[in-house]
Amino acid sequence: MTHFYEKLKQRVAEFGPLCVGIDPHPSVLETWGVAQDVEGLAQVALGMVEALADSVAVFKPQSAFFERWGSAGAAVLEQCVAAIHEAGGLVILDVKRGDIGSTMAAYAQAYLADGPLSVDAITVSPYLGFGSLAPAIDLAEASGRGVFVLTRTSNPEGSDIQLGRTVSGDAVAQSLVDQAAARNRESGANAVGLVVGGTHQSLGVELGSYTGAILIPGIGAQGGTISGLRSSFAATSALLLPSVSREVLGAGPDPVRLRAAVDKVLAS
Amino acid sequence: MTHFYEKLKQRVAEFGPLCVGIDPHPSVLETWGVAQDVEGLAQVALGMVEALADSVAVFKPQSAFFERWGSAGAAVLEQCVAAIHEAGGLVILDVKRGDIGSTMAAYAQAYLADGPLSVDAITVSPYLGFGSLAPAIDLAEASGRGVFVLTRTSNPEGSDIQLGRTVSGDAVAQSLVDQAAARNRESGANAVGLVVGGTHQSLGVELGSYTGAILIPGIGAQGGTISGLRSSFAATSALLLPSVSREVLGAGPDPVRLRAAVDKVLAS
Repeated sequence: MTHFYEKLKQRVAEFGPLCVGIDPHPSVLETWGVAQDVEGLAQVALGMVEALADSVAVFKPQSAFFERWGSAGAAVLEQCVAAIHEAGGLVILDVKRGDIGSTMAAYAQAYLADGPLSVDAITVSPYLGFGSLAPAIDLAEASGRGVFVLTRTSNPEGSDIQLGRTVSGDAVAQSLVDQAAARNRESGANAVGLVVGGTHQSLGVELGSYTGAILIPGIGAQGGTISGLRSSFAATSALLLPSVSREVLGAGPDPVRLRAAVDKVLAS
Repeated sequence: MTHFYEKLKQRVAEFGPLCVGIDPHPSVLETWGVAQDVEGLAQVALGMVEALADSVAVFKPQSAFFERWGSAGAAVLEQCVAAIHEAGGLVILDVKRGDIGSTMAAYAQAYLADGPLSVDAITVSPYLGFGSLAPAIDLAEASGRGVFVLTRTSNPEGSDIQLGRTVSGDAVAQSLVDQAAARNRESGANAVGLVVGGTHQSLGVELGSYTGAILIPGIGAQGGTISGLRSSFAATSALLLPSVSREVLGAGPDPVRLRAAVDKVLAS
């Protein structure tokens, strides 16, 4: 079995280190000139895949914009994931799930086991403790998939908890990095990725001992550049995966302009 | 417009203070003698509503067990929500969503605006900061719906972050209680509920100034009783909403046994 981290490394070597978000926000549907309905959602989601599947390492559909349309939106998400997989691409589904026990296990089954919404990796949220994510990490390791743990986000309201202290006195985000690093060392699968925003003046976490992949939102429209990241993340040998959404989506629906937007970000 | 909190108070006055979880776990499908598929899921979800809609204050479907079946599961969730609403009941959808900006707004649109999965309230997760939940709180207040903020969960891994300190030096869970209390005071709508586990020896938060509803999982199978809650939550005048799942679900599919299980919990 090839683990997600290895697949991701191969795709990044081939196509460059970019994750392209599929965030079919109402304003994107407007830019693309499609209807504000489930058909328009499908045109954007599938249009992105058609234009870019053979030129980017990995896609990151944002679940919220599909959930917005109920079960019909979930069906479009299934089509979108299937289209990416058919083209040989990888999918990180941005769902930020987090729960405990059998409920966390059900989320893991939903996305990290074979099934209609089976993807290569998901984002998860650690408010219930890193340990609560175990059912997802266990299944990811067993099925060759991955999870990306929200660690240090770039929104201003994020610091209050994330840069706070745990009961044991560790910095919160740092304790997540350390637990992810330990788990990856132990398994060798590097199934536990991190989500770390790309627009911080100072990261607020030491990534030194961490192996695995770091998903970095905030490239392009949010102000970050890939060369800027290389310097702010210079201390880590982890696989850096900058993620762009608005800047690429806003260039659609013309495939030539979509590919040019990807190239522009990759060169930034 | 009648706010969610007022509707909830009326239902609790009429039917007693119990939220019944709809968690169609594989083991529940087995107990009910239904197939491990989307049909079985529908039989459990709709069977619960049919048996109990006229005798409990509010239902709490657990999204993970529907998402497990992809868009077909989401369609069953839509049917389940519609059935509860048709019977005049209330729905707190347990989704634990949390994101930032336009993505949080999309989750709010998905569940707190009119649409196929429109419910009365959802659970939300605050790792990205209480402030990141604003799009959901804003919409809940405007549409007469509610959000329940994960505050202090009863799983052992939960304490590390939840009882830690924010950057400003406040206890994390307490700072969420205080921000929720302030928001409810300001709006008068009491749209911001809390989720506080029901099996703590010591709560670890002061609820004194908080008005609004407190969703309390952990009743029944997890060891809590309603009379026990009345003493551990004695210091608050908030609306207490204990939630039971396994103990009731496990009594199905016989409607008489389901109602007896509800009565037993209510008397506990």
